[in-house]
Amino acid sequence: MDPNLLTGLLTPGTSKIVFIILDGVGGIQMEEKGGTELQVARKPNLDQLAEVSSCGLLEPVSPGITPGSGPSHFAIFGYDPFQFNIGRGILEATGIDFPLTERDVVARINYATIDKNGKVIDRRAGRISNETNERICRKLQGSLRLSREVEVIIEPVREHRAVLVLRGEGLRGEIEDTDPEREGISPLEPKALIPEAEGTADLVRDFVAQSRKILADESRANMVLLRGFAKHTRYPSMKERYGLNALAIAAYPMYRGISRLVGMTVLSSVSTLADEFKALADHFADYDFFFLHIKQTDSRGEDGNFDGKVAVIEEVDRYLPQVRALKPDVLVVTGDHSTPAKMRSHSWHPLPIILYSQYCLVDPVKKFDEVSCIGGALGKMPSVQLMPLALAHARRLTKFGA
Amino acid sequence: MDPNLLTGLLTPGTSKIVFIILDGVGGIQMEEKGGTELQVARKPNLDQLAEVSSCGLLEPVSPGITPGSGPSHFAIFGYDPFQFNIGRGILEATGIDFPLTERDVVARINYATIDKNGKVIDRRAGRISNETNERICRKLQGSLRLSREVEVIIEPVREHRAVLVLRGEGLRGEIEDTDPEREGISPLEPKALIPEAEGTADLVRDFVAQSRKILADESRANMVLLRGFAKHTRYPSMKERYGLNALAIAAYPMYRGISRLVGMTVLSSVSTLADEFKALADHFADYDFFFLHIKQTDSRGEDGNFDGKVAVIEEVDRYLPQVRALKPDVLVVTGDHSTPAKMRSHSWHPLPIILYSQYCLVDPVKKFDEVSCIGGALGKMPSVQLMPLALAHARRLTKFGA
Repeated sequence: MDPNLLTGLLTPGTSKIVFIILDGVGGIQMEEKGGTELQVARKPNLDQLAEVSSCGLLEPVSPGITPGSGPSHFAIFGYDPFQFNIGRGILEATGIDFPLTERDVVARINYATIDKNGKVIDRRAGRISNETNERICRKLQGSLRLSREVEVIIEPVREHRAVLVLRGEGLRGEIEDTDPEREGISPLEPKALIPEAEGTADLVRDFVAQSRKILADESRANMVLLRGFAKHTRYPSMKERYGLNALAIAAYPMYRGISRLVGMTVLSSVSTLADEFKALADHFADYDFFFLHIKQTDSRGEDGNFDGKVAVIEEVDRYLPQVRALKPDVLVVTGDHSTPAKMRSHSWHPLPIILYSQYCLVDPVKKFDEVSCIGGALGKMPSVQLMPLALAHARRLTKFGA
Repeated sequence: MDPNLLTGLLTPGTSKIVFIILDGVGGIQMEEKGGTELQVARKPNLDQLAEVSSCGLLEPVSPGITPGSGPSHFAIFGYDPFQFNIGRGILEATGIDFPLTERDVVARINYATIDKNGKVIDRRAGRISNETNERICRKLQGSLRLSREVEVIIEPVREHRAVLVLRGEGLRGEIEDTDPEREGISPLEPKALIPEAEGTADLVRDFVAQSRKILADESRANMVLLRGFAKHTRYPSMKERYGLNALAIAAYPMYRGISRLVGMTVLSSVSTLADEFKALADHFADYDFFFLHIKQTDSRGEDGNFDGKVAVIEEVDRYLPQVRALKPDVLVVTGDHSTPAKMRSHSWHPLPIILYSQYCLVDPVKKFDEVSCIGGALGKMPSVQLMPLALAHARRLTKFGA
């Protein structure tokens, strides 16, 4: 549905919506474990919630498509993941709380090691320390001299990763990566992908050449590789789209960054699960939408740590009564995508969802897992349809048409 | 699917399709009642039909979107509810059987009371009687003098509601409402939303000014408030789109109006359920598509009358054998949207559907209710996809592609 049409149906309300997002929660069966991570986990509170809710499966982006964290989260927040496909540079920048403007073109920097012939011999510069990273960023920032009209900002992220921001009028993001993606060859030339980006490509060539000189005396981080150029554009906020004052509770910078892009207020002082659930209760009076992000399910999945992922699910289950005690009008528990421990990576599999409200149709699903939720009232639906459903169950949408 | 493509696949036939539409039939559980209205109703005939049919859930317009009667019915007839989002004025006019032309711009009139400073003090003029309404419409009609090129028609609806029709060449519907939607302030100025509508806006301003003078001596209905301006456009008929001679059997004017917009023949002499089912039998030889509309399920739902809605469902169930005795080739039983008694209003919830034909895949569903039909062969599908399915089961579509 056209988001503007949806916005036109908004009606003011005081209802509260909570999204608990277990990153990568979906899985597939591992035979030796007797099921998927969710099937094996003991989670009485989540199962009881499923029993009184509408359940179903979320298709993150499109059948067979494995999403990154950007598209899968945008979809959950109701933003078309194809339209709002965000560059890696932007994601890194927002992830370190860097305040981007609409005059910025951003790219991710990987510090690398090149040999005296200019061939890349280590694409990660031996994973230099955060301290070295910060020192090198300051060194570049202090010595670079590009055009007078364009500001250059170099911000460290961690290890060998940093962010390049070019700020000025008329810059374009259509620039090819310079990262050759393998070792033994030279970095690629910065090339404009469209004629309108030629000016920006010239600047980037100048940036690369100067950086190489400035870093020539470094033993490891003596070169920059650039990826994911993109021009920053302003996103419609959740306030504008849905009339919601939204709070993001996320321990990991990237998810805070995505939240900030859609206009959420972002708490930066949380790190443990206990912190996150406490923050939800502490701020419950002050907002009407809450995004509580749990990273560990995804991390354990990527590590192939089936039991570890099960343990995280069981830990979240123990916090659920605290959430229900707040009596949110709409409570959604789901993930952004699947990260089956069996695959040690994100995957395309649909993942289960619980949607609770006093206005939900209660279906026969009694367990929160990939197989049980197949029979749910929500069916299998694209993640991007979740926000309209949540708003409806929160009684925040009026009738369409006479 | 593109409706023109569908039309290109039509093949002539003598098969007959019956749609029994229980308005607002879908519900959600009321705990104290032990289920939804459909789950609680004793309906052996509907359940037996479900047992030998394909079942599923209809999504009226889009997930989370609560439709009005216009969009939800257009969708059932296979007309995109976003493309054919009809203005309130048009719906009112067609609802009173007023024959619109393509030269007409229509708006709904609410007679209101203003004080001597021109502030609205009662937006419904104390809900004047139908008789007063008719008298005031005649009074306006007799005294108004607008442009020589434009005909003005004022038609009473009921209580404080009437319809304004401006008929002439080049009129536009892009005019803002003058109804301020609250009391204590003056009516809004009629404003053109696009430059091309300036001429029509001038006419509307003149109409409002003259009306105010003509009604000055009325104690209650001394002002007109206008809403839902729209230009009438011709809709492709079901005959053109589907090759069907369609008959509408509906007791309520608005549904007769919608049926007329899509080119159905409309019976106006029915009022009770008994009338409606008798009319179906009486005219069964003469048409090949039948829309039988039952309003009472929606009315009871809007009243919050769970038991009353159950009783209507049970009454319809008793008529079902009469319908099956006619041996329609395709028999669909469903609704246009949900109106849960628990919510006392239309809602966004998907609603169950039975599609019977000798060519349907029989699924395991044995009961006609929201929860049982989740497991049906039709899955959850947008209402707008129902007509192609009905045509297919009636063997009225040929193969697509070689």
